[in-house]
Parts: sequence; C-alpha cells; structure tokens
Amino acid sequence: MPFDARDPKTRLATTLTSEERRQFAHLLLSDVLETIWAAGGEPELLATAPVDFDTLAGGWDGDHDSDGKSALELAVDIPVTVDDRPLTEAVNDRLAGGERTAIVMADLGLVTADSLGRLFDAGEQADVVIAPGVGGGTNALVVDHESFSVDYHGCSYRDHREQCLALEATLAVVDSFRLAVDIDEPTDLVELLVHGTGRATAWLDDRFEITTDEGDFGRVTVTRRE
Amino acid sequence: MPFDARDPKTRLATTLTSEERRQFAHLLLSDVLETIWAAGGEPELLATAPVDFDTLAGGWDGDHDSDGKSALELAVDIPVTVDDRPLTEAVNDRLAGGERTAIVMADLGLVTADSLGRLFDAGEQADVVIAPGVGGGTNALVVDHESFSVDYHGCSYRDHREQCLALEATLAVVDSFRLAVDIDEPTDLVELLVHGTGRATAWLDDRFEITTDEGDFGRVTVTRRE
Repeated sequence: MPFDARDPKTRLATTLTSEERRQFAHLLLSDVLETIWAAGGEPELLATAPVDFDTLAGGWDGDHDSDGKSALELAVDIPVTVDDRPLTEAVNDRLAGGERTAIVMADLGLVTADSLGRLFDAGEQADVVIAPGVGGGTNALVVDHESFSVDYHGCSYRDHREQCLALEATLAVVDSFRLAVDIDEPTDLVELLVHGTGRATAWLDDRFEITTDEGDFGRVTVTRRE
Repeated sequence: MPFDARDPKTRLATTLTSEERRQFAHLLLSDVLETIWAAGGEPELLATAPVDFDTLAGGWDGDHDSDGKSALELAVDIPVTVDDRPLTEAVNDRLAGGERTAIVMADLGLVTADSLGRLFDAGEQADVVIAPGVGGGTNALVVDHESFSVDYHGCSYRDHREQCLALEATLAVVDSFRLAVDIDEPTDLVELLVHGTGRATAWLDDRFEITTDEGDFGRVTVTRRE
C-alpha cells in the first residue's frame, strides 16, 4: 500500500488544515490497513517518508474502535519501505520481486473486507486485476505477471488495460463502488459520511455534517459543524 | 425506468447544445433499455412527456449496433407511462401496484448485464435493494415491500436506508461502480469514454476525446475534437 507520509491530501486543502489533513490521512490509512487484515491480506507500506505511528494513533481516542485496539497497536508491526521517488517508480521497483502483489491506495475510505475480498479472489483467476477509480484512475490492482508495470500518470485504467492486451496477460476488472471511490477531493467527503464505517468517518463526522439542496437529485455537500 | 423527455441533461449544458443533450439522453436511454433486456428484465418507461422514438433512432446510424437492430426497433414496443409530476411522486404512484419492481435511472451509461444482474439477483433475497450513486444518491432500486416509497430529494441513499430500518424491511446494497455512476455532469463524460461500450459512448467518442494532465494521478478530462 503506497502512502504519502509527507504532505498528504493536498487537494483537501480548501476544506481541512494541514494538521487535519495529516490526521485524516493517517486515519484513512489505518482503516484500509485494518480492512486488508480482515480480508486476509498481509499489508506492507510503501511510504514516501518514515510513517509517524504516533500520529496514526493520536488525534483519535479509540472510542469507536469496537475491538479495543488502537490504530497504533494495529499498525505498529507492519513492514514499511521508505521510497521517496514518484509513486509509479516506487511501486514498479517493489513489483520487480515477481510474486503476486496487490497494490491498494491508502485513501480508499469506503473499502470493506467484502469488496477487497472480491479483488483478491479475482487475483486467483487472472494475471492482472484492476479496480477502476472514478475519473479514469486505477485504485487497486493485483499483479501476477512478471512483465506488467504500473503507470499512474494520466488515464491509468485505460493504459493498464492496453498494457494487458499488449502483454497478452489475462485481465479481470472488479466492478465495485467501494473500490472506485478514493477520498481525495472535498466532494469525496460526502461519500465517507454516507457510506463509511471506520475511524476516518467518525473523525470526519465529529467535524462535518451532510447538507442537501432542495429538489429531486439536489446536490449533497458537507458543511463544517458550528 | 424514469426518463425526462422534455429537457434532459441540463447539467451538461456547458458542454453540449440542447439538441446534442436530447440526442445523447435518448442514446443513453436506448443503451440502458437494451441492457435491461440483456439482463432478463422487462422494461417500462415512466416519462415526463411522450417519448420521441424518432429522436431515439435519429442522430445515430446504427453502425455500432452489432445485432443489426436500430435503437428505434429495440425501443418502439415498450410500454410508456407519461406522468409529468416530479420524479418521486411519479415513481411512488407506479410502485403502488405492489409487485416487485426495479427502478433504474435512464442515465446509467456504464451499466452492463452483469451489474444489473447482480441488482436483480439481490432483489430475490431482500425486500429492498439499493445501488447507491456517487454523491449520496440512489441510482437503482428493487422494491418488493408494500409500504416502501422512494424519496429522491436530498441524500436519498441514507434516507432509503433509514426507511428500511423503520419499516423493518430487509435491505441489500449492491456494490457496483457501473451502477454508481450516472452520466449527469461534464466530469461524468470521462467515465463513459473510458468504461462505456454502447451507442451513447460511440456518439460521444465521435465528438470528444480524453485529455490528461501530467503527473501521477493527474486529472482526466474530455475535450471537444477539432
């Protein structure tokens, strides 16, 4: 799981302070980590800088954690590789190991063990599995092909598909709303408040609420609580 | 399937002319109709005005229609109920009949027989099935409960969930990217060009292309072809 430990969630800068973005990104990370465990995965972090596990645990009192473990206790033992190169290069270097690997973004705040399980299961049937993201992106991959490399520039979903064709690699696509939504922009916060269940959602719900326009299909937005 | 036959796709007015929006909305409609047939459903239209099946067939030469049928031939025999009341009232009136009914929006341009099949299958196991839409909406429902009524105002996914709890109706939620994306705003056109396969996609691809920013996770947009 790639993670930007330096200046995460910059596209949320209109909505959250830099300290809030840091807390929020670490809570999203801890939610996704926990879900990977629940789905039977063995997560490893690929971080742009050493991960501050105190931050991961801090700013959160654990009240909403039903199993009594803090985010710190959950996360402290996982392997972390620090690689400050751009995402694409860092992931490809890690993939060069050759064994079947899932690459799951750290901001998939809606992810559940079921949706991740569908991704992992598909990985047993195809050389490459893609879970597309909204906007042409690739939110999660399973790669079990020695020549496949990621490229997160541009319309990566289309490019990854074309690469599979060129390599004659078998491809599966996972049709999941929960894997398609990354929490990246202010409008994405709506998704977390409506569909989320983890620590990041509870943290957000303490600070923001859902507001709606009038009318059929009026827009739903988030507003900071007074 | 509810359909606005009067002034469809107004949120695309910055990108498409009113005549283009009319053509495009009818092509989306014909794609969704065809997919409902492919998934074993029996579609009926609930339209705000009489549907112009000539428009449905026009503006499209049928070249991309692999089975040789025109959109008109596909659509001309389906039952149409004209009801010019707001969506919520019109759908609830139709639901009052009491038999199990799916309500599928006419602008789900990414829908496939597989994703719709998952919706229909879930409808055999629960009183109410919801396929959430991006932004807190409800893009598709299956209702098999005499007291459930739709309300598309505001954050309808959350409201429909709460109504199920209040009615003690069993609820299933379908986790599908293809059901979650409606083609409503200019940014949604990216989804159609990347993931779509039907007539509306081919029509759009004749007029627009995908353009991308530089950098990892750069934004993907559509640009009108010169």
